[in-house]
Amino acid sequence: MKKQDFVNKILAYHPGRPMQEIAFAYAPSNIALCKYWGKRDEELNLPETSSLSVSLADRGATTLIKLIDSNQDEIVFGEHSLSAASQFAKRVSHFLDLFRPKGQGFFIKTDTNIPIAAGLASSAAGFAALISALNLLFGWQLNNKELSLLARLGSGSACRSLWHGFVEWHCGQAQDGLDSYAEPLNEQWPELRVGLLITHTQQKPISSREAMKLSKTTSLYYKLWPEQVAKDLPILKQAIMTKDFKTFGEVAESNALAMHATMLTAKPAVLYWQPETLQAMYAIWQLRAEGIPVYFTEDAGPNIKLLFLAEQADRMQAHFRSLEIVAPWHFTEKLNN
Amino acid sequence: MKKQDFVNKILAYHPGRPMQEIAFAYAPSNIALCKYWGKRDEELNLPETSSLSVSLADRGATTLIKLIDSNQDEIVFGEHSLSAASQFAKRVSHFLDLFRPKGQGFFIKTDTNIPIAAGLASSAAGFAALISALNLLFGWQLNNKELSLLARLGSGSACRSLWHGFVEWHCGQAQDGLDSYAEPLNEQWPELRVGLLITHTQQKPISSREAMKLSKTTSLYYKLWPEQVAKDLPILKQAIMTKDFKTFGEVAESNALAMHATMLTAKPAVLYWQPETLQAMYAIWQLRAEGIPVYFTEDAGPNIKLLFLAEQADRMQAHFRSLEIVAPWHFTEKLNN
Repeated sequence: MKKQDFVNKILAYHPGRPMQEIAFAYAPSNIALCKYWGKRDEELNLPETSSLSVSLADRGATTLIKLIDSNQDEIVFGEHSLSAASQFAKRVSHFLDLFRPKGQGFFIKTDTNIPIAAGLASSAAGFAALISALNLLFGWQLNNKELSLLARLGSGSACRSLWHGFVEWHCGQAQDGLDSYAEPLNEQWPELRVGLLITHTQQKPISSREAMKLSKTTSLYYKLWPEQVAKDLPILKQAIMTKDFKTFGEVAESNALAMHATMLTAKPAVLYWQPETLQAMYAIWQLRAEGIPVYFTEDAGPNIKLLFLAEQADRMQAHFRSLEIVAPWHFTEKLNN
Repeated sequence: MKKQDFVNKILAYHPGRPMQEIAFAYAPSNIALCKYWGKRDEELNLPETSSLSVSLADRGATTLIKLIDSNQDEIVFGEHSLSAASQFAKRVSHFLDLFRPKGQGFFIKTDTNIPIAAGLASSAAGFAALISALNLLFGWQLNNKELSLLARLGSGSACRSLWHGFVEWHCGQAQDGLDSYAEPLNEQWPELRVGLLITHTQQKPISSREAMKLSKTTSLYYKLWPEQVAKDLPILKQAIMTKDFKTFGEVAESNALAMHATMLTAKPAVLYWQPETLQAMYAIWQLRAEGIPVYFTEDAGPNIKLLFLAEQADRMQAHFRSLEIVAPWHFTEKLNN
């Protein structure tokens, strides 16, 4: 099925009138605890497996969208107007094509308070904010579950950025992808902290899209990835329900390592770690050896994300000076944009 | 089957007279190109899969063995007399027990010109030299294939250190382990170079014995390790026959990474890499991106081994200042002992 047909199906009962002239939305970034790694459908961004994330509260992206008198989009990222030929602008415009009234150009301004393309889910937040803004602009009145289906077309993991807290993306089985949506877990964990250890802000050498494709098509070990997720996901959900932090941390960490193992065995091998990544991993293992409950997860980038509870926040801040601590259930700062 | 029964079976037709008073032997270290990772029998060191190595010519271990008037062994490693309670001395004495005339103590002096326990196969060379020295001491007149069966009991990969050049260790299938021996490949590759990039000489945090056991028993991905080897080993042997260096390097490198991937997914995760390991890997990939045929392999330790051909030796030496280049078919320096 083509993306456009998918969009038409979703929007069939949402004619979207009246159209606004301007709309604005925010979406949080999200960090997967059980990873999304590999697609069963490249066109519709349908994943091989379900996944589970926690959203990063006030770390994310805002998008402002405005109708303009032009058939060309104008895309501004932060302070910079992007060339229409840039990769990012092309990706956004292609996504907008799915919803564009004939000949209508958009002005888009996106701001994010996380480094982009460094494994911090900036594109997830960006596409989630964009689809939310489009929902307002066109007056579709779609709910978040429906928006998650559309956000997914821009970036798979964007479907998990429509909510705060824990969010599960159901892989679904249907060919048309209508059952591959996200929904929030009805669980709170206000003591949970995510520590962003941002050692590298440069763009990653290979996109996660390319890396997962390479893993799926060339790594022998990828064959067992669905089995890994089938094992990890229910344990993780159970640990969230019972607030069993040890199990939660262990499974999140080993799930991330299993994903990196499938990359390592891709051909050519894909490696996102940098020396600082290893140093952080060893530091965390050392803290655990000393009895301190801290775990990590890591995505398609060199930056480690620590998982710990509020009671360890001071110690973690002292140990990792540059650590940025996010409390997913607390909004501590305003988004700068 | 017990080790002692295994030894008795091998020695049944080798009464071993006359006994010498002193014997001396050398064995090279060996670097696996298709790794040995995981045992099917812990007692007899029977491997899950076959493996293939290249020996490091004059990098290895010498062992001098002498009968002494004592029922206690005296073990000297390099310049240091080891306490009988030390782990290394105990391991050697237990091995000697398999061959010891009742009440007979030995003086053993082992020297090596490679760092020990740092993933450079020092124990493989050590046990191969020891069994060769015992063969002379007892006058068994065992051939190398038979010695490989006995060396295996001390350290699995020691069975590959009985020869120079390429050596294959056949995993075998028999419960009694008599078909799990090594033998040399009848192939030379005089242009092949192995570059030792020794960045860490401290002892590794977890022995390869423990790490492979943990991988086998706790890593989901280990299930596919035998399949990985079944794929890699014939390609590697073919590449050696046809001197197809690109295929040789690619398969050796990806086989090593697949082994490390099984460690990464063990519980707890096992990681031997250090920041310098990653730096070396990236440097090698960068050189390859520039069209220079250089690959790496890595074992249970942080030290990378480069694989390249003689024509690249000067360039590699210039690029990696501390690189120690070994020419497996050339003996360039005397062993210091």
